[in-house]
Amino acid sequence: MKKISLLGATGSIGTQTLDVIEHHSDQFVLEAMSVGRNIELALKQIHAFKPSLVSVTEEEDAIKLRNEVPVGVKVVSGEEGLIEVAAHTGAEVLVNAVIGSVGLAPTLQAIEAGKTIAIANKETLVTAGHIVTEAAKKHNVSLLPVDSEHSAIFQALNGESLAEVDRLILTASGGSFRDRTRDELRDVTVDEALNHPNWSMGAKITIDSATMMNKGLEVIEAHWLFNVPYDDIDVVLHKESIIHSMVEFVDRSVIAQLGTPDMKVPIQYALTYPNRLPATNSERLNLWEIGSLNFSKLDFERYRCMAFAYEAGRMGGTLPTVLNAANEEAVAAFLDGKISFLEIEHFIEQALERHDKINQPTLEDIKEVDRETRMFIHSLR
Amino acid sequence: MKKISLLGATGSIGTQTLDVIEHHSDQFVLEAMSVGRNIELALKQIHAFKPSLVSVTEEEDAIKLRNEVPVGVKVVSGEEGLIEVAAHTGAEVLVNAVIGSVGLAPTLQAIEAGKTIAIANKETLVTAGHIVTEAAKKHNVSLLPVDSEHSAIFQALNGESLAEVDRLILTASGGSFRDRTRDELRDVTVDEALNHPNWSMGAKITIDSATMMNKGLEVIEAHWLFNVPYDDIDVVLHKESIIHSMVEFVDRSVIAQLGTPDMKVPIQYALTYPNRLPATNSERLNLWEIGSLNFSKLDFERYRCMAFAYEAGRMGGTLPTVLNAANEEAVAAFLDGKISFLEIEHFIEQALERHDKINQPTLEDIKEVDRETRMFIHSLR
Repeated sequence: MKKISLLGATGSIGTQTLDVIEHHSDQFVLEAMSVGRNIELALKQIHAFKPSLVSVTEEEDAIKLRNEVPVGVKVVSGEEGLIEVAAHTGAEVLVNAVIGSVGLAPTLQAIEAGKTIAIANKETLVTAGHIVTEAAKKHNVSLLPVDSEHSAIFQALNGESLAEVDRLILTASGGSFRDRTRDELRDVTVDEALNHPNWSMGAKITIDSATMMNKGLEVIEAHWLFNVPYDDIDVVLHKESIIHSMVEFVDRSVIAQLGTPDMKVPIQYALTYPNRLPATNSERLNLWEIGSLNFSKLDFERYRCMAFAYEAGRMGGTLPTVLNAANEEAVAAFLDGKISFLEIEHFIEQALERHDKINQPTLEDIKEVDRETRMFIHSLR
Repeated sequence: MKKISLLGATGSIGTQTLDVIEHHSDQFVLEAMSVGRNIELALKQIHAFKPSLVSVTEEEDAIKLRNEVPVGVKVVSGEEGLIEVAAHTGAEVLVNAVIGSVGLAPTLQAIEAGKTIAIANKETLVTAGHIVTEAAKKHNVSLLPVDSEHSAIFQALNGESLAEVDRLILTASGGSFRDRTRDELRDVTVDEALNHPNWSMGAKITIDSATMMNKGLEVIEAHWLFNVPYDDIDVVLHKESIIHSMVEFVDRSVIAQLGTPDMKVPIQYALTYPNRLPATNSERLNLWEIGSLNFSKLDFERYRCMAFAYEAGRMGGTLPTVLNAANEEAVAAFLDGKISFLEIEHFIEQALERHDKINQPTLEDIKEVDRETRMFIHSLR
């Protein structure tokens, strides 16, 4: 039995991770979990999976929860609670599926505790890739991607040598507005933006998919996960989201991973790696049913967030932290109806332009730049 | 330096193998080669690559050639010569790229001599898969595929466990007549049949591609190469020949190998495996330039040779030998203008129907059934 700690249990990745654990209950057991403020769902999960430790964001929720959980379930709260779930249990694998920069510290603690990290939290690698990959190396810990694109690349690299990689090719659906010009993006509504054609995901990531910031952050993550320079990471638009990503090798051979769009496949792969187990209710891919797979070139003028991400990634230092924090706050403002869709890009651009980069930032630097960037975006609203 | 023996040096695979050897002359050296009757090209190749041993089909050609080759090049002939090139040199790898059943005996001898086999000769596995795979196992010899489809599957399986394979999915271009109905095949000419849309190959294999017997033989080869039952081998029509084949695993994840249609890539991979070297003048695949990849379901009524191949493969014994021999003779008759395109299928069907299967045939059985089947097809012409 593989013991698993799960951060972000009530989110989209979290619930699907629990589906996988439930489907393979002879292989996996949930040791500990964290949730945000969805206490109702958390309680159902606690009864179903019986973890011995649960962390919630707010102590007031912890107090309520303690009266309702079965005997033997310890309930903790706050950042300390998150770290306890991530690092201080008997779990061998941490699935980090929290959203936002709050996911960084627990990952580092879990690495120090020698746990395998299944990583779905973008910020961990985007803002602190240099620290996290260094720590993983030092503690001889595996960083396993959960994102469908990175999992595809990870699977394509299986049995191969990184030295023989020519480039990584990430596929991008283009999000909910892929058939619109920039002009047609002016007056789009939140509801339109949330209507993703292929994937059912959380609100923040669906907006990121529409701006393509999602793909930009994935480029930065791929850089750190696979130690490949930005010049050797390409993005191709592929609206069907069937080829999840590819690797081109020096001999011009391209290995791709394909499948129906279903996050349970990469989640399960991260849990079973280097083995595979039968699918958790995932549909078989029959390409003759799909008919055709389409590809087009990425236009950096159309998707400006992609250009920002490449630039921030190449410049490095604290710029990816600014990119990410500005994006989080701008997307939140858009979802709150405070700013327009295109203002997301404008806000991010301004935040990047005014920032004085710190090279090789410490965790404290990252935290401070993150805080400061969020304040700046707030001041623009 | 890896020393290579090459059977079928003047053919399509042979010349491209020499391209690869020439491009990576710091890695590979041609130790020995065999040719058929194209003595003019052979002589050029001998001067360029300086093998120490050359075999030709006819002794009369050998006599002529001995006067023209550089000092130190030994020239032999016939089946014995072929075996000498395959098995009795200092080469570590045998590339078997001869066409037809003549390729079988040299492969077995090379296996017994402990050489790695890069196999492009279909008949070796189609007619004697049970003998060849058993011998390879016994002598701990690797059988490396050269065909683009099998190389794709081999690459997709890299680092994976065969026990976790759900099915192999071979792609098929559909050949030169893929857009025609059966009715429209009645009066096609040899020239039309030789006009393959994607691949530049020899005449026999181009006709096999039009009848899809090529794909049928590949299904049988895949069965033996990867030890996968016929029920778990699918074929999908994919007219662009960009995805060269795929493997679906038990977790519904599909790994595919892609590239521009260029045989030098799989040839080189067989020579460099498990490593990769920079491409030999092969073009980079940019999917946005291709635009779209199309797939459709295989119709066994339209492509009757596919149905014959699955049936012969499933029944086993000497039936694949009959399938192959009948096909070779029928295609030759079509190329000679003696029979129509659709008669190729009819002849093969008749040969299969009248045959009394021998289970677990010996090499002698195979040779006899091959001979007898060819005579039967001749009697129909």
